[in-house]
Amino acid sequence: MFFHVQKLINEIVPDEPDPAAANALQEGLGGQFGEMRTMMQYLFQSFNFRGKAQPYRDLIHGVGTEEISHVELIATTINHLLDGSPRYNGKADDIPGKGGETPLEIALNKPGTGSGGGNIHHFLVGAQGAMPVDSAGNPWSGSYVYNSGNLTLDLLYNLMLEATGRLQKCRLYEMTDNKTARSTISYLIVRDQAHENAFAKALETLGVNWGKVLPIPKTDVTKYPEVKKLMDQNLHNQQHHWRLDGSQMAKIFSGSSPTNDGSTLETTDAPPEGVPVTDAPERPEEFSPGLTPELKKMVEQIASM
Amino acid sequence: MFFHVQKLINEIVPDEPDPAAANALQEGLGGQFGEMRTMMQYLFQSFNFRGKAQPYRDLIHGVGTEEISHVELIATTINHLLDGSPRYNGKADDIPGKGGETPLEIALNKPGTGSGGGNIHHFLVGAQGAMPVDSAGNPWSGSYVYNSGNLTLDLLYNLMLEATGRLQKCRLYEMTDNKTARSTISYLIVRDQAHENAFAKALETLGVNWGKVLPIPKTDVTKYPEVKKLMDQNLHNQQHHWRLDGSQMAKIFSGSSPTNDGSTLETTDAPPEGVPVTDAPERPEEFSPGLTPELKKMVEQIASM
Amino acid sequence: MFFHVQKLINEIVPDEPDPAAANALQEGLGGQFGEMRTMMQYLFQSFNFRGKAQPYRDLIHGVGTEEISHVELIATTINHLLDGSPRYNGKADDIPGKGGETPLEIALNKPGTGSGGGNIHHFLVGAQGAMPVDSAGNPWSGSYVYNSGNLTLDLLYNLMLEATGRLQKCRLYEMTDNKTARSTISYLIVRDQAHENAFAKALETLGVNWGKVLPIPKTDVTKYPEVKKLMDQNLHNQQHHWRLDGSQMAKIFSGSSPTNDGSTLETTDAPPEGVPVTDAPERPEEFSPGLTPELKKMVEQIASM
Amino acid sequence: MFFHVQKLINEIVPDEPDPAAANALQEGLGGQFGEMRTMMQYLFQSFNFRGKAQPYRDLIHGVGTEEISHVELIATTINHLLDGSPRYNGKADDIPGKGGETPLEIALNKPGTGSGGGNIHHFLVGAQGAMPVDSAGNPWSGSYVYNSGNLTLDLLYNLMLEATGRLQKCRLYEMTDNKTARSTISYLIVRDQAHENAFAKALETLGVNWGKVLPIPKTDVTKYPEVKKLMDQNLHNQQHHWRLDGSQMAKIFSGSSPTNDGSTLETTDAPPEGVPVTDAPERPEEFSPGLTPELKKMVEQIASM
Amino acid sequence: MFFHVQKLINEIVPDEPDPAAANALQEGLGGQFGEMRTMMQYLFQSFNFRGKAQPYRDLIHGVGTEEISHVELIATTINHLLDGSPRYNGKADDIPGKGGETPLEIALNKPGTGSGGGNIHHFLVGAQGAMPVDSAGNPWSGSYVYNSGNLTLDLLYNLMLEATGRLQKCRLYEMTDNKTARSTISYLIVRDQAHENAFAKALETLGVNWGKVLPIPKTDVTKYPEVKKLMDQNLHNQQHHWRLDGSQMAKIFSGSSPTNDGSTLETTDAPPEGVPVTDAPERPEEFSPGLTPELKKMVEQIASM
Amino acid sequence: MFFHVQKLINEIVPDEPDPAAANALQEGLGGQFGEMRTMMQYLFQSFNFRGKAQPYRDLIHGVGTEEISHVELIATTINHLLDGSPRYNGKADDIPGKGGETPLEIALNKPGTGSGGGNIHHFLVGAQGAMPVDSAGNPWSGSYVYNSGNLTLDLLYNLMLEATGRLQKCRLYEMTDNKTARSTISYLIVRDQAHENAFAKALETLGVNWGKVLPIPKTDVTKYPEVKKLMDQNLHNQQHHWRLDGSQMAKIFSGSSPTNDGSTLETTDAPPEGVPVTDAPERPEEFSPGLTPELKKMVEQIASM
Repeated sequence: MFFHVQKLINEIVPDEPDPAAANALQEGLGGQFGEMRTMMQYLFQSFNFRGKAQPYRDLIHGVGTEEISHVELIATTINHLLDGSPRYNGKADDIPGKGGETPLEIALNKPGTGSGGGNIHHFLVGAQGAMPVDSAGNPWSGSYVYNSGNLTLDLLYNLMLEATGRLQKCRLYEMTDNKTARSTISYLIVRDQAHENAFAKALETLGVNWGKVLPIPKTDVTKYPEVKKLMDQNLHNQQHHWRLDGSQMAKIFSGSSPTNDGSTLETTDAPPEGVPVTDAPERPEEFSPGLTPELKKMVEQIASM
Repeated sequence: MFFHVQKLINEIVPDEPDPAAANALQEGLGGQFGEMRTMMQYLFQSFNFRGKAQPYRDLIHGVGTEEISHVELIATTINHLLDGSPRYNGKADDIPGKGGETPLEIALNKPGTGSGGGNIHHFLVGAQGAMPVDSAGNPWSGSYVYNSGNLTLDLLYNLMLEATGRLQKCRLYEMTDNKTARSTISYLIVRDQAHENAFAKALETLGVNWGKVLPIPKTDVTKYPEVKKLMDQNLHNQQHHWRLDGSQMAKIFSGSSPTNDGSTLETTDAPPEGVPVTDAPERPEEFSPGLTPELKKMVEQIASM
Repeated sequence: MFFHVQKLINEIVPDEPDPAAANALQEGLGGQFGEMRTMMQYLFQSFNFRGKAQPYRDLIHGVGTEEISHVELIATTINHLLDGSPRYNGKADDIPGKGGETPLEIALNKPGTGSGGGNIHHFLVGAQGAMPVDSAGNPWSGSYVYNSGNLTLDLLYNLMLEATGRLQKCRLYEMTDNKTARSTISYLIVRDQAHENAFAKALETLGVNWGKVLPIPKTDVTKYPEVKKLMDQNLHNQQHHWRLDGSQMAKIFSGSSPTNDGSTLETTDAPPEGVPVTDAPERPEEFSPGLTPELKKMVEQIASM
Repeated sequence: MFFHVQKLINEIVPDEPDPAAANALQEGLGGQFGEMRTMMQYLFQSFNFRGKAQPYRDLIHGVGTEEISHVELIATTINHLLDGSPRYNGKADDIPGKGGETPLEIALNKPGTGSGGGNIHHFLVGAQGAMPVDSAGNPWSGSYVYNSGNLTLDLLYNLMLEATGRLQKCRLYEMTDNKTARSTISYLIVRDQAHENAFAKALETLGVNWGKVLPIPKTDVTKYPEVKKLMDQNLHNQQHHWRLDGSQMAKIFSGSSPTNDGSTLETTDAPPEGVPVTDAPERPEEFSPGLTPELKKMVEQIASM
Repeated sequence: MFFHVQKLINEIVPDEPDPAAANALQEGLGGQFGEMRTMMQYLFQSFNFRGKAQPYRDLIHGVGTEEISHVELIATTINHLLDGSPRYNGKADDIPGKGGETPLEIALNKPGTGSGGGNIHHFLVGAQGAMPVDSAGNPWSGSYVYNSGNLTLDLLYNLMLEATGRLQKCRLYEMTDNKTARSTISYLIVRDQAHENAFAKALETLGVNWGKVLPIPKTDVTKYPEVKKLMDQNLHNQQHHWRLDGSQMAKIFSGSSPTNDGSTLETTDAPPEGVPVTDAPERPEEFSPGLTPELKKMVEQIASM
Repeated sequence: MFFHVQKLINEIVPDEPDPAAANALQEGLGGQFGEMRTMMQYLFQSFNFRGKAQPYRDLIHGVGTEEISHVELIATTINHLLDGSPRYNGKADDIPGKGGETPLEIALNKPGTGSGGGNIHHFLVGAQGAMPVDSAGNPWSGSYVYNSGNLTLDLLYNLMLEATGRLQKCRLYEMTDNKTARSTISYLIVRDQAHENAFAKALETLGVNWGKVLPIPKTDVTKYPEVKKLMDQNLHNQQHHWRLDGSQMAKIFSGSSPTNDGSTLETTDAPPEGVPVTDAPERPEEFSPGLTPELKKMVEQIASM
């Protein structure tokens, strides 16, 4: 059974909207190596887990539960990057498009309009909100989920998956300096490294010695200022278990790091404090939520009960 | 942020394995109107929610969080239905297939082997475990998720979605009397009705009067013995919010049922007690978890720490 | 603009239901070389037609319009083949599944139930009705439609497409002797030959001489009794234009057949007489149409106005 | 059986080519909520209709037949928006690209070429013509078609589908003021509202009272000048049945509008007059139709017979 | 540049046709972890290889070239398993289906016909020949190909890929004892192990020590009689480079095995001798090759030139 | 069995990187009518070939083997077009992105950055390398492969396929004058014509006379300077068989051209000389190959053995 607290797992720094960056971040949400995939893969692996090796199951499930919060974080980040049609300053009661205006012109990526590199579906199918697709517009597919049932193989795949996620996020970091995008990209670079550590450590308990190949990509991400701050908090060596009824994850995620860099892994009992979720503004030009003054009054009456 | 307790939301009744029923239940897991879809749709709708109508957001998010537990329940049910290669009685240390044996012959659905109607991927790609596909083998797709951003429209879609889910589960009920399958099918018939009530009631607050068309399908499911038991507990009129930090869901999910049958909706503060998860047996013929005696000893040592 | 008459383009002969044959016929409906594809391909080619060669456009559009009626025919044929759950004899007001019965057991394709080779979606997603998928369950895709804009190439593709359709229908003929299936398969074998003739003749007007390779497959289908009847009516050499405002199709579809068999092509001014559509029975076990006695009375009142 | 008249259901106003707007309009043609989908969904629902409620079947089939003409209209509109490679002024007998020229440079969406936001497939795979894909390039899929067989549920889905279509077209209106695009977008806004009315009214006959939530989105589209003209003709309250042999649609589509705005629904016996289809110009740079002078002479001879 | 010799890389043992086993083997051909995927993945990785580490490139390319021959082998094996419609004994000049016969009835997987578990497309779309799909009928997808460009990561993925391939082939071994199927399954079990060794050894050169986890699955396949024969030839420790112009593969694929079992890797300079390809019989019931006596004579004249 | 020589089948002319042209060329690699498709289609047709008409099998297989080299050529061309992040001048040991820099900004296609029309996946998922997708980002699909088993039909399809490939390459020629792109486009225009000739000639041996419709498109490509050079070498009338053990292809591919232009077909015994493959540069900003100085030393040691 799963529970929820309406807080984000990390802070999103405010900056200007940027539909092209929003589109790029979709890879981290709905891409083949994004958060929806890690979430579903680890949940399926733990639901289908065979045998009595509970610490391994708890490790996989614990990371999987964290990934749901990552989906929440990156979806919200994309929303912030999309929010707002630059030329639309109408009041809520206005009719967007009245008199033939084009407040959503930005969606078309036409030259000369200051737009480009965005996904038109963000404006046309969604209401300036995140979608379960990748940065090339392909919908997420269940065929991404890998669950062979063989423990060694599943752990090996998971390690590769986190390393690829981290690789792609490092590339995303180099694509945009928008602070909103960067705050979430940097956080995920660090967390992907923690998850690399988790699966590499589990394989180490089965006898593999990783030498000096980890983490992948083998680059000093403390050169990225936003990442350095989080590394200084040792966030890449920590893992919370997200279990209200306790977890055996610490039997694996502890001791020396499998990167053989001399650092130490630590399973935390307390979850992060979390960051409050803010209300997203209404967008009349998207008809979202699209209530008439009359319907709005009915909704407000419900809310004030 | 999301949290987990390793319990199932409802009990799974034991019965014989049945790969054809397992395949049929995949529709409820990875089908276009299955639990992965409701889960993702409601999570996206709440992550992308616009405006200040918190009770509506809490309602959608609350149902969405419950759906993650439904995914967990139905995946585990499918596992139980798949578990076991009938002719394989080898010990764990045996080599399955040794001497040319065919302990997985059942996977081929060949005439004369007592098998048929199953999905070969359950045995060949997975290790007798659930997969994110539907009953015709199509992988789940992100294109299923509907999130227009328009509140009325999203609620209308959600009502239709739950009604279709309930319709398909009633059809599934008529396809198999396997007790394992039935226990979960019956539970989901009742919960889908609760969710129909949730979204229909939300539309009622916006002024729609549903007359006598709900629930859909319009059939007396108390004629199904397994369902009747759950209806007698009023489970179709109750909804827990799954929020550790409180919820405003009750402002909508309360008062007279939108089915206009005289019953009353109730938001519960306490979650269901839950049912402990049992360990799934090792399956040497699937090489799952596939540890050698030597590796197994290492794993056991970790577990006993 | 398109218009409709509620008649079928050919008669469907009654026979026993046969879900496996129904599934096979899906290839002719929603397969890569089925009627939905020919219909959409020819409609797109005529909507996008360039230049002033009206007889060619009329030829393509005329065949395309006929294909809509083929979609109607084959969908209805599949319905007839699916109709009825053999063990269900309940009255309309009964609750199917009451007391735990399994009237839809046939859907699972389990050994020992007399079923096999069907598509479970026909019973679980649809209500024993046709679907836009092929015989392996793949949904129809827009990527099938070919429209290069180059007239020679489009005609060449269309010829290949009709020949492949005819090839697959000859194979379907060899798979089942169900009379319902055979009546439509045989009709389509003959019509596909007429359409082969249409596109081959158009290429002949551009200078190609087909020698003796047509029709493809090069087999004497008059050995198929149901087909012979239709060939005796010369149906493979006739083409109606389906245009209420006249057509220039006859400028191409006339004169000697491009098969060089000595026969003559003929464009007809009058459409076939058509066959009345019969009402499909209600299926309470599918909750289709699923009206309560009360709702049914309301519907009947509307109908009797 | 289906018939055709070579006229468009509404006029397309001439304006400059605009490949980005053409791409956006693809959502209305081949998108999940576009015209190909409504067309196929309603045709399947009527082919598979169960029971004797003929007025309901006629309503669904009538709207479905109109949708084929919408596919024709929007495909033709996209053609007009795509037509022409701005730098190509060659004569028909020229060789496009001769001497190394790049008359199709526009297709690449490169900065500095005045292009952007288009779909390269419009120029590379098609010949500046419409394709069965959405605005993000995804091909249309048979998995879009919904046909549960349950009448209430199918009507509810259809209402939601039309409302989503109208929502997307309102958003499209705000994206472009190209007159060619606008003429068809505006027409479809109004017709989608008529179809919302059709399915909402059918549900009203089953007892639902929609209060004030319709139409969706709840916005005053008479503020859009092009839409106002059509609303002034009451086009949103009218529906023709498109049946050459009569229809019982009027038993439902008549009386007070389900929007409860005091207006009255009207089923018309006469179809719209229609607008003649014009020949699309040859495009040598696309090799469309691509006939040599010699082949062209042969084609002209056929046409002049 | 690539070259071909018309020989198979391993012998296919004759046995009875078995459409269900043919379908199962499709996973090894067109599945997510089958030979088409390894072939394409390694070819793309070598075409896109960055830097000067030629031995690594040669290793990847060498294995990739071998995979093309595996595609050839497994496709031909599937052909042998499919070949022949049991009830069809007609002569070549007969018309299959004449008089209403059903020589392809086997394709429908109907109960009571002795068929089941096959893919109808093998008979309906193909002519009893292999297809680029998996055992659940999903077409092969380019999204399977993994090529991050990061050498460590690509090698890690390739190791996982070969291990999964070997896991699935061990499961296939347990599903069927058909000798035709088994001969190719057993060969691929051994070759997948050789390829595991190749990529694991390459990672070993970068510092990883695999301990005792390899090969995956960790099972003694010499208990499979057909496999034992090939292991006795040390085929799992040998690798040919398939390069006509020499290769640096041996710099990696040599020395102690990364499985740490004491065995030694060996790069061979000479390719396997190969096995002649036999002509597949004509299948009149599939219209394959479908030549009339007249056309056949023309073909024979060409062949005898 | 297949063999490899590390040479390209034609020379790639150096020019500036051009991500938009790279994306366009993807159609020729992973598109529905691109080289991966021709390669797989002809390989499947020859693996599944029925009957004794060896010259026809050799013709299809020979062209299919050439296509693997075309995949190699076009993938390498795309690599050259993608190579290099314009603003990145870091040394190999630098950390790309250090201090918050954005060396991969070009990937986003944002206005004002000088980029546009590219596929972000080329930079984010791949490492500035080719991918198995088309120019709209759709992954290659096994459903593209056509292999009916009917010889006439397969040849007809293949002719249409090559003609479509040539059509698309002529359109690509008109889209870009980048010399790198043009060198490969021009070569493929000529080779597609040779392959049109191959399949058209094979159909001619079965009795078809093509008159003057070939090649398609019917345009004088000698007006394209880069193409003229290759035509002057008669490359469109030559075909090598790529068989180390001899081939009967020449029995078909010889004599007068099926285009009836008076030219003569010629099967060559010697393959083209080929062009050496150059090393692609390391790309630190892509972490490709991503070796640390320490790991690089280990790799160099291996290479120098």
